[in-house]
Amino acid sequence: MFLPMSFHLEAEFIVARQERLRALLGRRRLPFLIVSNPTDIFYLTGFRGSAGVMAIGSRDCVLWVDPRYTLQAREQTRGAEVCEERGGLLRAAVQWLRKKRARRVAFENSHLTYEQHIKVRQGLPGRGRLVPAGGLIEGLRYIKDEVEIRCIREACHLTAQVFKEVLRHAQPGVRESDLAAEIEYRMRRKGAEGQAFETIVASGPRSAFPHARPSSKLLRKHELVIFDLGAILGGYVADMTRTVYLGNPSRRVRGLYDAVHRSQLRAIERLRAGASAGDVDEAARSELARHGLARYFTHSTGHGVGLDIHERPRLGRGEGSALQPGCVVTAEPGIYIEGLGGIRIEDTVLVGASDPEVLTPVSKDAWFVA
Amino acid sequence: MFLPMSFHLEAEFIVARQERLRALLGRRRLPFLIVSNPTDIFYLTGFRGSAGVMAIGSRDCVLWVDPRYTLQAREQTRGAEVCEERGGLLRAAVQWLRKKRARRVAFENSHLTYEQHIKVRQGLPGRGRLVPAGGLIEGLRYIKDEVEIRCIREACHLTAQVFKEVLRHAQPGVRESDLAAEIEYRMRRKGAEGQAFETIVASGPRSAFPHARPSSKLLRKHELVIFDLGAILGGYVADMTRTVYLGNPSRRVRGLYDAVHRSQLRAIERLRAGASAGDVDEAARSELARHGLARYFTHSTGHGVGLDIHERPRLGRGEGSALQPGCVVTAEPGIYIEGLGGIRIEDTVLVGASDPEVLTPVSKDAWFVA
Repeated sequence: MFLPMSFHLEAEFIVARQERLRALLGRRRLPFLIVSNPTDIFYLTGFRGSAGVMAIGSRDCVLWVDPRYTLQAREQTRGAEVCEERGGLLRAAVQWLRKKRARRVAFENSHLTYEQHIKVRQGLPGRGRLVPAGGLIEGLRYIKDEVEIRCIREACHLTAQVFKEVLRHAQPGVRESDLAAEIEYRMRRKGAEGQAFETIVASGPRSAFPHARPSSKLLRKHELVIFDLGAILGGYVADMTRTVYLGNPSRRVRGLYDAVHRSQLRAIERLRAGASAGDVDEAARSELARHGLARYFTHSTGHGVGLDIHERPRLGRGEGSALQPGCVVTAEPGIYIEGLGGIRIEDTVLVGASDPEVLTPVSKDAWFVA
Repeated sequence: MFLPMSFHLEAEFIVARQERLRALLGRRRLPFLIVSNPTDIFYLTGFRGSAGVMAIGSRDCVLWVDPRYTLQAREQTRGAEVCEERGGLLRAAVQWLRKKRARRVAFENSHLTYEQHIKVRQGLPGRGRLVPAGGLIEGLRYIKDEVEIRCIREACHLTAQVFKEVLRHAQPGVRESDLAAEIEYRMRRKGAEGQAFETIVASGPRSAFPHARPSSKLLRKHELVIFDLGAILGGYVADMTRTVYLGNPSRRVRGLYDAVHRSQLRAIERLRAGASAGDVDEAARSELARHGLARYFTHSTGHGVGLDIHERPRLGRGEGSALQPGCVVTAEPGIYIEGLGGIRIEDTVLVGASDPEVLTPVSKDAWFVA
């Protein structure tokens, strides 16, 4: 059983995040930022509703919510004034910015839609004062603070526990979708708020689809089965994948599995402060290439995780972002061979000051089951 | 047990949707439309991956996917050519449009982000040729075809079944989050692909938060409990809410419940072709006003459902959209009183040629339990 996570982040962490953001805004001479991505709003205020608009300035931080969320926002929000708004949240924020005589307003250009952008621009006096913020908040979220690492660690622990329990049910004759249901049910019962993404249980030839949905197909003897799962706890996600074989695998399948396993260990080994995201990808990829398997590795080696299941950095070919202590990423090389099936092994890993810490420590050796 | 839904929509329905879209584009003299919303791509091609970009012209329809999705896209897509693309899907689409010498390209302005818009605009030769498509695809999706209605009907049926089963477990001493877990587990076991939104189980004072997350709070005697749940089946969602009382409610609580119940019936009664969305809201709202409860009804009366949980039309104050046969919407008035709790009753309803059809026919009278 896991400790239930409190919804209420300690105010000091929230305020520290706002201060870090204000420092970045100050450096770019941006007196105001308008935030509409619910995940960013949670990060910056503690409010977990699905809709809200926030504006932050050097002295103010205001959150507009619709009446569905007023009580909840008052309970959860830290370091921001909560305003209830019945007509359009973006419009309310724009009106407030007008009153503040805001001349340069930054916005989240990878989140705001074209339509919303037009609406905000038309609402502000004059033109050309809306400035794309680029990856400002993403940059903050790239390095996890102590509270965030605690949440991810617990989400990973819970996910690993559930996988170990459910693996015992992975037998010929069991339906993929029933295993997925079992996984999600056990996550919930252990206190998860939900799953970070649609749980994958894909067997036999279906395992060659990297993002297969669980189907009504029954598991059969002599098949590969991929499990890809992750719980959400305190808003933070876990992500892990294991591949098992039902029965005694052939030499070929053993060889393939060992190659992916080695590739994954090579990637984890490179998850150190100072390495670039591209280095990690290269480590995994070159190991598979040594076995002539590079062409079957059809995705990147990993991605950041946190409040979202896909965050910066992307561990892909040529990606320059430097890893830093506090980065949390996945390492998940995989190969997919049409007709035969797929093999993917994935852990969530914390980049620390020294060695990388695997947060989902489930055996990768005990992969013959049933 | 429900019939497993096939992932493969019959090609004729897909092609008919593309043709309806082409007719709309033709009328607006838009030779090409670029589509990046995965839900719209599913609607128009049958491909259910989480990432893809599609371009449709008067003769062509092309879908670009990354290598994770190549096999899946080839299996699922109807009426479109599938192209695997390793570098940026939007860029590939823009290159294709250049080759086609596309001069006016429509885009989804409420989906494409500011950043993506800039990228597409810069990719096209010359300027000013990107045209906001407005609610073009939303307009098509507003009226459900036969396949869609079948999916929603089954999703609703499954959801209603699960609610009836789980209601038996709603006893004092049970944890909100365990009931939510039970609901989601049973949905899955009956063949649902997942839940349409985070299941709500909110008891006592927490029921006054319209969008409460299930917590570790135990249900207690003499409390209101709100259940809001919906399964996904074949990509389509259901949405229903029931409120129950644990024990024998006071006269006041009975009066409140009856008022909400009457308000909901008034709304359903107005769900007929020709009525406007605002009429339906007004019907529900005026009934609550008659009981002096209008100020506690803090949201709109309902919304369309389909592939998304919130679609057009919004059944809100003054909304002019006219209902038509084939619209599927929720009717869900609710009241939320701080300290006391909340009461909401919601059905998914099909607007037909004659009477509205409630797709989630679960008793609203048997609301005293335990």
